Amino acid sequence: MSDLPDCLYCRRDQRLQDLMIEIAPLAVSTLYLFKEQTHRGRCVVAYQAHVNELFELDAVEVGRFMNDVARAAKAIKTAFAPNKINYGAYSDKLPHLHFHLVPKYEGGPAWGAPFEMMPANKTLLDAGGYAATVAAIKAAL
Amino acid sequence: MSDLPDCLYCRRDQRLQDLMIEIAPLAVSTLYLFKEQTHRGRCVVAYQAHVNELFELDAVEVGRFMNDVARAAKAIKTAFAPNKINYGAYSDKLPHLHFHLVPKYEGGPAWGAPFEMMPANKTLLDAGGYAATVAAIKAAL
Repeated sequence: MSDLPDCLYCRRDQRLQDLMIEIAPLAVSTLYLFKEQTHRGRCVVAYQAHVNELFELDAVEVGRFMNDVARAAKAIKTAFAPNKINYGAYSDKLPHLHFHLVPKYEGGPAWGAPFEMMPANKTLLDAGGYAATVAAIKAAL
Repeated sequence: MSDLPDCLYCRRDQRLQDLMIEIAPLAVSTLYLFKEQTHRGRCVVAYQAHVNELFELDAVEVGRFMNDVARAAKAIKTAFAPNKINYGAYSDKLPHLHFHLVPKYEGGPAWGAPFEMMPANKTLLDAGGYAATVAAIKAAL
Protein backbone atom coordinates (compact mmCIF):
# COMPACT_ATOMS: atom_id res chain seq x y z
CA MET A 1 0.00 0.00 0.00
CA SER A 2 1.21 3.48 -0.81
CA ASP A 3 0.43 6.71 1.03
CA LEU A 4 0.88 8.61 -2.23
CA PRO A 5 -2.19 9.98 -4.02
CA ASP A 6 -3.53 7.71 -6.76
CA CYS A 7 -1.67 9.80 -9.34
CA LEU A 8 0.61 8.54 -12.08
CA TYR A 9 3.12 11.35 -11.51
CA CYS A 10 3.32 10.59 -7.78
CA ARG A 11 3.44 6.82 -8.07
CA ARG A 12 5.46 6.66 -11.29
CA ASP A 13 3.69 3.40 -11.99
CA GLN A 14 2.77 1.52 -15.16
CA ARG A 15 0.32 4.24 -16.19
CA LEU A 16 3.21 6.70 -16.37
CA GLN A 17 5.57 4.22 -18.00
CA ASP A 18 3.00 3.56 -20.72
CA LEU A 19 2.96 7.26 -21.59
CA MET A 20 6.49 8.51 -21.05
CA ILE A 21 10.16 7.80 -20.35
CA GLU A 22 12.21 9.66 -17.73
CA ILE A 23 14.93 11.84 -19.24
CA ALA A 24 16.29 13.60 -16.16
CA PRO A 25 15.40 15.15 -12.83
CA LEU A 26 15.40 18.96 -12.96
CA ALA A 27 15.52 21.43 -10.04
CA VAL A 28 11.95 20.92 -8.77
CA SER A 29 10.49 18.63 -11.42
CA THR A 30 11.15 15.66 -13.67
CA LEU A 31 11.54 15.81 -17.43
CA TYR A 32 9.96 12.97 -19.42
CA LEU A 33 9.90 12.10 -23.09
CA PHE A 34 6.30 11.64 -24.25
CA LYS A 35 6.18 8.31 -26.09
CA GLU A 36 3.74 9.65 -28.69
CA GLN A 37 6.19 11.43 -30.98
CA THR A 38 4.06 12.98 -33.75
CA HIS A 39 5.94 16.12 -32.71
CA ARG A 40 9.58 15.06 -32.60
CA GLY A 41 10.99 15.76 -29.16
CA ARG A 42 7.65 16.13 -27.36
CA CYS A 43 8.14 16.07 -23.58
CA VAL A 44 6.39 16.56 -20.25
CA VAL A 45 7.77 18.48 -17.25
CA ALA A 46 6.03 17.34 -14.06
CA TYR A 47 6.33 19.21 -10.76
CA GLN A 48 7.79 17.22 -7.88
CA ALA A 49 4.73 17.45 -5.61
CA HIS A 50 1.02 16.83 -6.01
CA VAL A 51 -0.30 20.36 -6.49
CA ASN A 52 -2.96 21.25 -9.02
CA GLU A 53 -2.61 24.90 -10.00
CA LEU A 54 0.48 27.01 -10.64
CA PHE A 55 -0.80 29.58 -8.14
CA GLU A 56 -0.67 27.04 -5.31
CA LEU A 57 3.11 27.47 -5.41
CA ASP A 58 4.73 30.51 -3.80
CA ALA A 59 6.44 33.07 -6.03
CA VAL A 60 9.93 31.61 -5.69
CA GLU A 61 8.71 28.11 -6.49
CA VAL A 62 6.75 29.33 -9.55
CA GLY A 63 10.06 30.73 -10.77
CA ARG A 64 11.93 27.49 -10.07
CA PHE A 65 9.35 25.33 -11.81
CA MET A 66 8.99 27.55 -14.85
CA ASN A 67 12.76 27.80 -15.20
CA ASP A 68 12.76 24.00 -15.36
CA VAL A 69 10.14 24.26 -18.11
CA ALA A 70 12.18 26.88 -19.97
CA ARG A 71 15.38 24.82 -19.62
CA ALA A 72 13.65 21.75 -21.03
CA ALA A 73 12.16 23.75 -23.92
CA LYS A 74 15.57 25.16 -24.77
CA ALA A 75 17.07 21.66 -24.77
CA ILE A 76 14.38 20.44 -27.18
CA LYS A 77 15.06 23.46 -29.39
CA THR A 78 18.80 22.75 -29.33
CA ALA A 79 18.37 19.04 -30.00
CA PHE A 80 15.82 19.14 -32.83
CA ALA A 81 15.57 22.75 -34.07
CA PRO A 82 11.77 23.04 -34.12
CA ASN A 83 10.39 26.37 -35.29
CA LYS A 84 8.39 26.86 -32.08
CA ILE A 85 7.76 25.12 -28.80
CA ASN A 86 4.16 24.96 -27.54
CA TYR A 87 3.56 24.90 -23.78
CA GLY A 88 0.31 23.47 -22.43
CA ALA A 89 -0.86 22.74 -18.88
CA TYR A 90 -4.42 21.42 -18.73
CA SER A 91 -5.01 18.51 -16.32
CA ASP A 92 -8.72 19.09 -15.76
CA LYS A 93 -8.95 15.57 -14.40
CA LEU A 94 -5.37 14.88 -13.28
CA PRO A 95 -4.59 17.35 -10.51
CA HIS A 96 -0.79 17.24 -10.64
CA LEU A 97 0.97 20.26 -12.13
CA HIS A 98 2.74 19.44 -15.39
CA PHE A 99 3.46 21.10 -18.72
CA HIS A 100 3.37 19.47 -22.13
CA LEU A 101 6.24 20.76 -24.26
CA VAL A 102 5.40 20.21 -27.91
CA PRO A 103 7.90 21.13 -30.62
CA LYS A 104 6.22 22.42 -33.78
CA TYR A 105 7.79 22.30 -37.23
CA GLU A 106 6.77 24.66 -40.02
CA GLY A 107 4.54 22.72 -42.43
CA GLY A 108 4.36 19.78 -40.01
CA PRO A 109 1.46 18.44 -37.91
CA ALA A 110 -0.77 21.09 -36.32
CA TRP A 111 1.49 23.95 -37.39
CA GLY A 112 -0.34 27.16 -36.48
CA ALA A 113 -2.91 25.30 -34.38
CA PRO A 114 -2.96 23.89 -30.84
CA PHE A 115 -1.41 20.41 -30.73
CA GLU A 116 -3.67 17.41 -30.21
CA MET A 117 -3.25 15.81 -26.79
CA MET A 118 -3.18 12.31 -28.29
CA PRO A 119 -3.36 12.06 -32.09
CA ALA A 120 -5.48 9.18 -33.46
CA ASN A 121 -2.54 8.04 -35.59
CA LYS A 122 0.18 7.67 -33.02
CA THR A 123 3.85 7.95 -33.87
CA LEU A 124 5.71 5.49 -31.68
CA LEU A 125 9.43 4.74 -31.89
CA ASP A 126 11.36 1.56 -31.32
CA ALA A 127 13.62 1.19 -28.28
CA GLY A 128 16.61 2.55 -30.17
CA GLY A 129 14.62 5.53 -31.37
CA TYR A 130 13.52 6.41 -27.86
CA ALA A 131 17.04 5.97 -26.50
CA ALA A 132 18.50 8.27 -29.16
CA THR A 133 15.80 10.91 -28.58
CA VAL A 134 16.28 10.84 -24.81
CA ALA A 135 20.06 11.06 -25.26
CA ALA A 136 19.80 14.05 -27.61
CA ILE A 137 17.63 16.03 -25.18
CA LYS A 138 19.72 15.02 -22.17
CA ALA A 139 22.88 16.17 -23.92
CA ALA A 140 21.31 19.58 -24.59
CA LEU A 141 20.08 20.22 -21.02
CA MET B 1 4.82 54.88 -39.14
CA SER B 2 5.82 52.79 -36.16
CA ASP B 3 9.18 51.28 -35.31
CA LEU B 4 7.39 48.49 -33.48
CA PRO B 5 7.26 45.00 -35.02
CA ASP B 6 4.09 44.31 -37.00
CA CYS B 7 2.65 42.51 -33.99
CA LEU B 8 -0.74 43.04 -32.42
CA TYR B 9 0.67 42.80 -28.89
CA CYS B 10 3.33 45.42 -29.62
CA ARG B 11 1.09 47.82 -31.54
CA ARG B 12 -2.08 47.20 -29.51
CA ASP B 13 -3.98 48.07 -32.64
CA GLN B 14 -7.40 47.13 -34.00
CA ARG B 15 -6.33 43.49 -34.43
CA LEU B 16 -5.79 43.26 -30.68
CA GLN B 17 -8.93 45.23 -29.84
CA ASP B 18 -11.00 42.87 -31.98
CA LEU B 19 -9.79 39.93 -29.90
CA MET B 20 -9.42 41.23 -26.36
CA ILE B 21 -9.96 43.99 -23.79
CA GLU B 22 -7.25 45.24 -21.44
CA ILE B 23 -7.94 44.40 -17.80
CA ALA B 24 -4.75 45.62 -16.12
CA PRO B 25 -1.00 45.93 -16.49
CA LEU B 26 0.88 43.36 -14.38
CA ALA B 27 4.57 43.39 -13.33
CA VAL B 28 6.10 42.54 -16.73
CA SER B 29 3.01 41.87 -18.84
CA THR B 30 -0.54 42.94 -19.60
CA LEU B 31 -3.66 41.01 -18.70
CA TYR B 32 -6.46 40.97 -21.28
CA LEU B 33 -9.95 39.53 -21.30
CA PHE B 34 -10.41 37.33 -24.39
CA LYS B 35 -13.64 38.48 -26.06
CA GLU B 36 -14.60 34.92 -27.01
CA GLN B 37 -16.06 33.75 -23.69
CA THR B 38 -17.12 30.12 -24.26
CA HIS B 39 -15.01 29.59 -21.13
CA ARG B 40 -16.22 32.23 -18.69
CA GLY B 41 -13.32 34.41 -17.61
CA ARG B 42 -10.94 33.39 -20.41
CA CYS B 43 -7.93 35.73 -20.55
CA VAL B 44 -4.54 36.31 -22.18
CA VAL B 45 -1.34 37.39 -20.39
CA ALA B 46 1.07 38.99 -22.88
CA TYR B 47 4.71 39.67 -22.05
CA GLN B 48 5.76 43.30 -22.32
CA ALA B 49 8.40 42.82 -25.03
CA HIS B 50 8.52 41.08 -28.39
CA VAL B 51 10.23 37.81 -27.51
CA ASN B 52 9.14 34.46 -28.88
CA GLU B 53 10.15 31.70 -26.47
CA LEU B 54 10.08 31.56 -22.69
CA PHE B 55 13.75 30.58 -22.69
CA GLU B 56 14.75 33.84 -24.33
CA LEU B 57 14.12 35.47 -20.95
CA ASP B 58 16.69 35.20 -18.17
CA ALA B 59 15.83 33.17 -15.07
CA VAL B 60 14.62 36.13 -13.01
CA GLU B 61 12.39 37.36 -15.82
CA VAL B 62 10.90 33.88 -16.38
CA GLY B 63 9.93 34.01 -12.71
CA ARG B 64 8.43 37.50 -13.01
CA PHE B 65 6.40 36.64 -16.09
CA MET B 66 5.11 33.33 -14.78
CA ASN B 67 4.17 34.94 -11.48
CA ASP B 68 2.06 37.36 -13.51
CA VAL B 69 0.46 34.34 -15.18
CA ALA B 70 -0.14 32.65 -11.81
CA ARG B 71 -1.58 35.86 -10.33
CA ALA B 72 -3.99 36.23 -13.24
CA ALA B 73 -5.04 32.57 -13.00
CA LYS B 74 -5.71 32.95 -9.29
CA ALA B 75 -7.85 36.04 -9.94
CA ILE B 76 -9.93 34.13 -12.53
CA LYS B 77 -10.33 31.29 -10.02
CA THR B 78 -11.43 33.74 -7.32
CA ALA B 79 -13.82 35.61 -9.60
CA PHE B 80 -15.57 32.67 -11.30
CA ALA B 81 -14.68 29.49 -9.36
CA PRO B 82 -13.80 27.30 -12.36
CA ASN B 83 -12.75 23.75 -11.52
CA LYS B 84 -9.41 24.13 -13.34
CA ILE B 85 -7.45 26.72 -15.26
CA ASN B 86 -5.76 25.65 -18.49
CA TYR B 87 -2.54 27.39 -19.52
CA GLY B 88 -1.50 27.42 -23.18
CA ALA B 89 1.30 29.20 -25.03
CA TYR B 90 1.47 28.31 -28.72
CA SER B 91 2.08 31.24 -31.09
CA ASP B 92 3.62 29.24 -33.92
CA LYS B 93 2.96 32.19 -36.22
CA LEU B 94 2.81 35.11 -33.77
CA PRO B 95 6.23 35.37 -32.17
CA HIS B 96 5.27 37.34 -29.04
CA LEU B 97 5.24 35.45 -25.74
CA HIS B 98 1.75 35.15 -24.30
CA PHE B 99 -0.30 32.60 -22.35
CA HIS B 100 -3.95 31.79 -22.86
CA LEU B 101 -5.65 31.26 -19.49
CA VAL B 102 -8.78 29.22 -20.00
CA PRO B 103 -11.07 28.43 -17.07
CA LYS B 104 -12.68 25.00 -17.33
CA TYR B 105 -15.92 24.02 -15.62
CA GLU B 106 -16.82 20.42 -14.82
CA GLY B 107 -19.34 19.23 -17.41
CA GLY B 108 -18.82 22.41 -19.46
CA PRO B 109 -17.19 22.92 -22.87
CA ALA B 110 -14.02 20.89 -23.49
CA TRP B 111 -13.91 19.57 -19.91
CA GLY B 112 -11.09 17.02 -19.83
CA ALA B 113 -9.79 18.04 -23.25
CA PRO B 114 -7.59 20.87 -24.53
CA PHE B 115 -9.63 24.03 -25.16
CA GLU B 116 -10.30 25.11 -28.72
CA MET B 117 -8.37 28.23 -29.72
CA MET B 118 -11.45 29.79 -31.34
CA PRO B 119 -14.70 27.78 -31.14
CA ALA B 120 -16.89 27.85 -34.27
CA ASN B 121 -19.86 28.96 -32.16
CA LYS B 122 -18.48 32.01 -30.44
CA THR B 123 -19.81 33.28 -27.14
CA LEU B 124 -19.65 37.06 -27.22
CA LEU B 125 -20.97 39.37 -24.51
CA ASP B 126 -22.56 42.80 -24.71
CA ALA B 127 -20.70 45.85 -23.44
CA GLY B 128 -22.18 45.49 -19.98
CA GLY B 129 -21.21 41.83 -19.84
CA TYR B 130 -17.61 42.59 -20.75
CA ALA B 131 -17.44 45.45 -18.24
CA ALA B 132 -18.75 43.23 -15.44
CA THR B 133 -16.34 40.41 -16.33
CA VAL B 134 -13.36 42.75 -16.47
CA ALA B 135 -14.38 44.32 -13.16
CA ALA B 136 -14.72 40.94 -11.44
CA ILE B 137 -11.24 39.82 -12.49
CA LYS B 138 -9.68 43.21 -11.70
CA ALA B 139 -11.20 43.16 -8.23
CA ALA B 140 -9.67 39.71 -7.61
CA LEU B 141 -6.13 40.57 -8.74
